[in-house]
Amino acid sequence: MLTFRIVVLPGDGIGPEVVAEAVRVLQTVSELSSDFELKLESHEFGGCAIDSTGEPLPPSTLKACQEADAILMGSIGGPKWGVNAKVRPEPGLLALRKTLGLYANIRPANLASDSLLEYSPLRPEIAKGVDMIVVRELIGGVYFGTRKEQGVAPDEEVAWDTMIYSVQEVQRITRVAAQIALAADPPLDIHSVDKANVLASSRLWRKVVTETLKNEFPQLKLDHQLVDSAAMFIVSNPKKLNGVILTENLFGDILSDQSSVIPGSLGLLPSASLAGAPSAPSADFKPTSGIYEPIHGSAPDIAGQGIANPIGTILSAAMLLRYSLGLEKPAKAIENAVRKVLDLPEAGGFGLRTADLGGNVGTKELGNRIVDIL
Amino acid sequence: MLTFRIVVLPGDGIGPEVVAEAVRVLQTVSELSSDFELKLESHEFGGCAIDSTGEPLPPSTLKACQEADAILMGSIGGPKWGVNAKVRPEPGLLALRKTLGLYANIRPANLASDSLLEYSPLRPEIAKGVDMIVVRELIGGVYFGTRKEQGVAPDEEVAWDTMIYSVQEVQRITRVAAQIALAADPPLDIHSVDKANVLASSRLWRKVVTETLKNEFPQLKLDHQLVDSAAMFIVSNPKKLNGVILTENLFGDILSDQSSVIPGSLGLLPSASLAGAPSAPSADFKPTSGIYEPIHGSAPDIAGQGIANPIGTILSAAMLLRYSLGLEKPAKAIENAVRKVLDLPEAGGFGLRTADLGGNVGTKELGNRIVDIL
Ligand SMILES: CC(C)[C@H](C(=O)O)[C@@H](O)C(=O)O
Ligand SMILES: CC(C)[C@H](C(=O)O)[C@@H](O)C(=O)O
Repeated sequence: MLTFRIVVLPGDGIGPEVVAEAVRVLQTVSELSSDFELKLESHEFGGCAIDSTGEPLPPSTLKACQEADAILMGSIGGPKWGVNAKVRPEPGLLALRKTLGLYANIRPANLASDSLLEYSPLRPEIAKGVDMIVVRELIGGVYFGTRKEQGVAPDEEVAWDTMIYSVQEVQRITRVAAQIALAADPPLDIHSVDKANVLASSRLWRKVVTETLKNEFPQLKLDHQLVDSAAMFIVSNPKKLNGVILTENLFGDILSDQSSVIPGSLGLLPSASLAGAPSAPSADFKPTSGIYEPIHGSAPDIAGQGIANPIGTILSAAMLLRYSLGLEKPAKAIENAVRKVLDLPEAGGFGLRTADLGGNVGTKELGNRIVDIL
Repeated sequence: MLTFRIVVLPGDGIGPEVVAEAVRVLQTVSELSSDFELKLESHEFGGCAIDSTGEPLPPSTLKACQEADAILMGSIGGPKWGVNAKVRPEPGLLALRKTLGLYANIRPANLASDSLLEYSPLRPEIAKGVDMIVVRELIGGVYFGTRKEQGVAPDEEVAWDTMIYSVQEVQRITRVAAQIALAADPPLDIHSVDKANVLASSRLWRKVVTETLKNEFPQLKLDHQLVDSAAMFIVSNPKKLNGVILTENLFGDILSDQSSVIPGSLGLLPSASLAGAPSAPSADFKPTSGIYEPIHGSAPDIAGQGIANPIGTILSAAMLLRYSLGLEKPAKAIENAVRKVLDLPEAGGFGLRTADLGGNVGTKELGNRIVDIL
């Protein structure tokens, strides 16, 4: 029997509420299986850690994360630790990403159930069938290049940042995108997004993506999109970008957020940040550390009311099983259970809706239903 | 009687066809007025200029543009001068922008007529009432900072670009946004977009925008949006950003293209690129040089067929009258005429539709109708 160690970081605001449901789901699949066991342990991170230790990422939390097989996170931040606070939670997140080497951010955008079409800001015929996975490089580019603030010599009236990529950084994120494309049957197309008509870093990006895929994954289909044009397609015809959208850190920040509103509620979507390419769920599976978290924030306005949507976090737990532990079967089972609670009765489902989708089902009740189905 | 010199750059593909209609519209308002006269002269620019002179921006064209009161452009480029061509049209455009100092790109995104709601990829209730003007800094930032290509020493495996802004560059574009906000009654809100939680250039941007508006335009309302969050709103709730969206070059490239698909056809939208803040159309009006062009490309697939939508170019001509010549009245008259050809008969209009909107009205016929209405 395989034993996995999962670190849980509930965080702030609605984080603890949604994480509690995902934890129950993980405990359930663990109890149901005789092949593997999940050992879950909770640690402080974010605003709550600032309150109790003075820093968002206490050494004990970092150490536990470094030793874990995977990390499940809720959300961090809140008005108490806002722009004017001395110590803020966000640097803790950036430090955790960088220290764990989580260079691959994976964000699917799709409708878990066609019954969600009515919530999309896009016309149903445009939203129906959208199925994109944004693979964003997460610890390079203009986020981590050298910068100079205003007020610093020599030219105090000027500020700058460096958008920088190396061949090796682009190769490794391209391999992650390729593995994800290959995990689907038939393999997904890869749409690489850059601004190669202007930027040198984008020309390197385009060249390395092209060569890496040609040499190592010649069976995959690749096209290149300029970032301005990709931003248009995500609104006008997102299905054109179905498959894997492979892009650098800043463009990925913008495009993944843009595509995440297509399903109608941020509460529905999961994410993964990985330290390596996920290997195929097979005999030679190699575990990859990663943080799994819903894409929504800590939503302080509804925290403590028991009404937050736990689905993004529960689907993050499914990604954790798939990508970090190689457990495809329970991952699929969770995803099917989520579809079932969302589908309308005429499609064999329960049609449950939390407040973000205009319903009145609570966080716990939704979690209960998913546990029951499993 | 005031005389203005307008340089016309028809360009490539459908450029000459759509420009021909805008020229007729300008000639019509000129003939109808006893206050001003427009002198129009055509020059080669883009692919056609490469064919006849070997370069996209011949010295004679540049000279005419420098001496003109304003420039009306069609569109440039095409497969004949594509990625693999030795000389390409796009550098001619970037050079023209830079040489003329056109630092302010103005792109309205709105529905010229509610009858266009059915063409929007957004749900009608979300698209209805969208009225944004993107004010994009056009000759700074990562487009014009120092860069290093891959393969160049010292570190050949790395490429980088510099995103750089000075206080003075941000001040002047902020003033343009403010003038545009003030031209409306009541004045428009300003939404400044940056990534100040990560980038030093964005922190400078946010500080300078805040101070410039506070000191010089205290009557205007300002908020700050992160670029990822703005990209979400433009899809989920674009009216939240109604008013002026003020942003730097790269973010403006992405967000203006993203918002331009809301009206349902790129053929409908105009743009202006200015060398200064437009002054109020009053006695002390100061002319500002500028290039006015539709946002669409040269569409080689439909060139020469007489079916392209001339509305984006005709509305660009209206912007030319307003911003470069201070002629608000004929500008409004053109915009009203455009609304009338688009409005459905039940709303007192003609409901004319070119092919991009699924209709079969030709370029010339649409131009005729607008001239007739004027
Ligand atoms: C908080 C911020 C620095 C972060 C980012 O831009 O990476 C966030 O927007 C995200 O996408 O996780
Ligand atoms: C052609 C390209 C360099 C240009 C830009 O990015 O500025 C275009 O996308 C635009 O927006 O006018």
